Amino acid sequence: MERTHHCGALNASHQNKTVVLNGWVNKWRDHGGLIFIDIRDRYGITQVVFSPELNNDLYEASKKLRTEFVVSVKGDVRRRPDEALNLEMPTGEIEVVASELEVLNAAKTTPFEIMDEIDVHEELRLKYRYLDLRRQKLKTNLIIRSRVYQSVRQYLTDQQFLEIETPVLMKSTPEGARDFLVPSRNYPGRFYALPQSPQTYKQILMVAGFDRYFQIVKCFRDEDLRRDRQPEFTQIDIEMSFINEQDVKKIAGGLIAHLFSEVLNVDIYLPIPQLSFKQAIETYGTDKPDLRFDLPIQTITDCFAETSFQVFQSVLENKGSIACLKLSGASRISRKQIDKYVDEAKKWGAKGLAHFKYQNSQFNGGISKFLNNSEKTMLREKLHLEDDDLILIVADRYDITYHVLGEIRLLLGLEYNMVHKEQFKFVWIVDFPLLEYDEEEGRHVARHHPFTSPLTEDMHLLDNHPQQVRARAYDLVLNGSEIAGGSIRIHTREQQQKMFTSLNIDKNEANSKFGFLMESLEYGAPPHGGIAFGLDRLVMIMTHSETIRDVIAFPKTTSALSLMDEAPSPISQRQLDELKLKIDLKNEEEQIPK
Amino acid sequence: MERTHHCGALNASHQNKTVVLNGWVNKWRDHGGLIFIDIRDRYGITQVVFSPELNNDLYEASKKLRTEFVVSVKGDVRRRPDEALNLEMPTGEIEVVASELEVLNAAKTTPFEIMDEIDVHEELRLKYRYLDLRRQKLKTNLIIRSRVYQSVRQYLTDQQFLEIETPVLMKSTPEGARDFLVPSRNYPGRFYALPQSPQTYKQILMVAGFDRYFQIVKCFRDEDLRRDRQPEFTQIDIEMSFINEQDVKKIAGGLIAHLFSEVLNVDIYLPIPQLSFKQAIETYGTDKPDLRFDLPIQTITDCFAETSFQVFQSVLENKGSIACLKLSGASRISRKQIDKYVDEAKKWGAKGLAHFKYQNSQFNGGISKFLNNSEKTMLREKLHLEDDDLILIVADRYDITYHVLGEIRLLLGLEYNMVHKEQFKFVWIVDFPLLEYDEEEGRHVARHHPFTSPLTEDMHLLDNHPQQVRARAYDLVLNGSEIAGGSIRIHTREQQQKMFTSLNIDKNEANSKFGFLMESLEYGAPPHGGIAFGLDRLVMIMTHSETIRDVIAFPKTTSALSLMDEAPSPISQRQLDELKLKIDLKNEEEQIPK
Repeated sequence: MERTHHCGALNASHQNKTVVLNGWVNKWRDHGGLIFIDIRDRYGITQVVFSPELNNDLYEASKKLRTEFVVSVKGDVRRRPDEALNLEMPTGEIEVVASELEVLNAAKTTPFEIMDEIDVHEELRLKYRYLDLRRQKLKTNLIIRSRVYQSVRQYLTDQQFLEIETPVLMKSTPEGARDFLVPSRNYPGRFYALPQSPQTYKQILMVAGFDRYFQIVKCFRDEDLRRDRQPEFTQIDIEMSFINEQDVKKIAGGLIAHLFSEVLNVDIYLPIPQLSFKQAIETYGTDKPDLRFDLPIQTITDCFAETSFQVFQSVLENKGSIACLKLSGASRISRKQIDKYVDEAKKWGAKGLAHFKYQNSQFNGGISKFLNNSEKTMLREKLHLEDDDLILIVADRYDITYHVLGEIRLLLGLEYNMVHKEQFKFVWIVDFPLLEYDEEEGRHVARHHPFTSPLTEDMHLLDNHPQQVRARAYDLVLNGSEIAGGSIRIHTREQQQKMFTSLNIDKNEANSKFGFLMESLEYGAPPHGGIAFGLDRLVMIMTHSETIRDVIAFPKTTSALSLMDEAPSPISQRQLDELKLKIDLKNEEEQIPK
Repeated sequence: MERTHHCGALNASHQNKTVVLNGWVNKWRDHGGLIFIDIRDRYGITQVVFSPELNNDLYEASKKLRTEFVVSVKGDVRRRPDEALNLEMPTGEIEVVASELEVLNAAKTTPFEIMDEIDVHEELRLKYRYLDLRRQKLKTNLIIRSRVYQSVRQYLTDQQFLEIETPVLMKSTPEGARDFLVPSRNYPGRFYALPQSPQTYKQILMVAGFDRYFQIVKCFRDEDLRRDRQPEFTQIDIEMSFINEQDVKKIAGGLIAHLFSEVLNVDIYLPIPQLSFKQAIETYGTDKPDLRFDLPIQTITDCFAETSFQVFQSVLENKGSIACLKLSGASRISRKQIDKYVDEAKKWGAKGLAHFKYQNSQFNGGISKFLNNSEKTMLREKLHLEDDDLILIVADRYDITYHVLGEIRLLLGLEYNMVHKEQFKFVWIVDFPLLEYDEEEGRHVARHHPFTSPLTEDMHLLDNHPQQVRARAYDLVLNGSEIAGGSIRIHTREQQQKMFTSLNIDKNEANSKFGFLMESLEYGAPPHGGIAFGLDRLVMIMTHSETIRDVIAFPKTTSALSLMDEAPSPISQRQLDELKLKIDLKNEEEQIPK
């Protein structure tokens, strides 16, 4: 009995045809002497009827079917009686009257039901991932993900990009996150590392002259995993030669527009708007602003130049900032709610959260008693105050002020349903600082990576004011998540060497880690740059999923466990011996202070 | 100066246009007061002229250019003088008269010239891979490889296959080759393994109901590397549900035909012919026959049933086989050459290589003196002997006879230019033995892998005659290389358990390694099967390359070294400590007998 149709294919036009369907028993029910089953496959669901009058043996056999049994059914397609039509289902006009049945495989009772709204601990879902993946939502996520791959490659190959694979077994050059390591058997004591990104290789491909490269590629980071990170993740990796920032942004924007149009039938208008890092921080309190709602932060430091309010005075003396959020509909917001925001602000590191209301043209409550008339006038004009506005103010160190208001902004956005959840709001963030100071390491580290080129006009600041140097870097943010980041790279050895010096990486270390890249820059390296998209997160947002685990076929837990196959697992002594390795757990205990 | 055209784009239609080209100086020459350079990029080569009369400063600057400098040149396109036309080059009608020049990057003298015919040790080429990749041949290989990826995905997605990524960090289940291992930091003493293939995951995806899966995926084997293997290699991985062998072969054949047509403009006629394992061995001496030339092995055991030739007598007593190759043009083949073939035969394990010639209707030389008239008649008929034929005979154990004749066949094919090197000759090999005996391990091992289903009609032999059981497996062979292999899988727990028992893998071991897969077979596993193509080898054959290293951007040496970045490399003590590992080289010395 060879399958003739998928379970989503049949409709009234197939009436009276004899068909064979293969699939899983999705539902089984006994309806007044007839057995009805729904057969499910990847493509849909079809109703099958077993009638004792047509074939009693078959009818009896159908009684023994259970959900998730794998069956092959032969039968004739017939139109359902009018009262049984289900026009919400693609196959809801018809049913198949069974004439033959083969059970291809039985199934035990599943540990949870195969349906979308299940209330099951994620651990159980991950252990029985093959059952979890039968649910419509997860299945759809992976189908969309598959279309994303094809759409991305289609666009990039149309733009003359070449897909080139880079090695997975590469050299360990930890700079930033920790490498996953692979011991070498041929060279005991030596290790390969899994790529955190194909960064050096894609630059080498530009030196080789490939002009436009891309790859959808697995990358690896042995991090202390945060809620929504995975030890292995997928990147759309792009690099181009003889280009500047605008060229990369044009390709990336075009890619996004193509992808959203092809896969989701959603129009993304180009060019994608752009904010400088400074603008983003001062307007949204973050370099990953969620633009699905407005509610900008407004800086009001100037309004308080001559304040008599001591808290603000001391902030200004310490060159701090005063900024606020303006929320309309103040009267709906209780004192208790405002207290909650104050607690939130403190949780995020502010010393407090000031407020006042503007009602009936009056400044009410909170700090309004500290405001003089001139300040009130300035605020009224600057903030375009309207009746029933609530103003929430943070006055603190520059970074704290904006960061805390950014978090409060997100909270308000959710609480007052300001977020248009169905929207996709993209924004470029540019003019990042090149370096940031790492307190733990006691040195500057590259904010993106050490191959990022400084802005030409800031180059003179590198020696003496390194923190003021901006990078030729750009991040693409979607709905408050960074979905891509990239930069124009350094393409001369001299400048790369200078960069390493700024990062306090001495010549020997730089040479032993990146000597091959630096040497390549001396043999005719073109100007080049690129970008990399986090594919898991992109698909997560595209599918409105809640975690990246829901868009990955076989994800790991936040502690990097695979609950289905139980990796990582112990290995044999023979495997260890071949690698000349010993496990040294004692060391761990020694490090615990007694 | 923004690039307006690629270096392969300009022709007479662009006359008088002002253009900007970016690229590498491919050639530099001083021709009677004019400097000519060829600029090269990925897309082609364009000639640029610098004339002192037009711009003397520019002319002087152009004198300082060297090969592999990266430049940006602005200039006007003009038709070359008639005597300078080069119609073999796409841009050979024109040249660009330079009006501006910018050196984007200088280049040191390269350690070898950037040209196709170079005589340089491969180690140097691998160390300076970015220079090696500038050569036309390697560049073209990677461009074709990129087109192969797209063409494969196009075909498979058109056939409703979903692309799904499987984990790289998985569980170590060595069965066959050695795993590459990745120590876990979160769980000291435990390890992940890199996939030798996504076999278990793709089967799990079938259990999950995805029906048709594919992936172009990196796989890893820590083998003692043979000449043309890589520790990481790329596989086109395919799995389907509710299918049989014919369905998989139809998809695989369709894929190949699409690929060769799209990428190489070569027609592959379908269906691809098929040989049983036994036929392949007895006709070509191998399960990877090269069908680009004929020269079949012919079995002549029967002709010698009553031989008086003692060597043959003793072979027949031991149930051995007698078989031969027939080569026309015997007179051109000297005694010395035949002696060489005898040596070759011995090298491959035969005790000797008998021969005779058939000239002027007479049996001449070699063993002809041992042949009686009835034998001569039988041979004349069976082998359709014609004037000037040479017959080369091996009489030995079955496996040796055919293996040695298979090797001699390949040798003769090359020596007498019988191989049509430009052809692509595909053949399916089927009806493989399910198991083979592993002398070292003292047990049967799966010839493909332990998830391969036995032929239904051979199932009853599994307990008592396991070596006679044939597998539902199929290999696709191209020009003498296995380029794909697959099978119909076992889809019930009971049968999988039985298979492990046949392989002498006890229940505990089977459960600890493959428990998750076996459990999944109890929750509604559909009948399924698949195939995997070795992409590196396929592209190697498609591009007529000599090694797979020439179709991989960054290959490793046969000892798994990356000469460019020097992986594997030592890691820091901190990295080792974090993994709770100690390197124990002492152990190695202990194992060397003193």
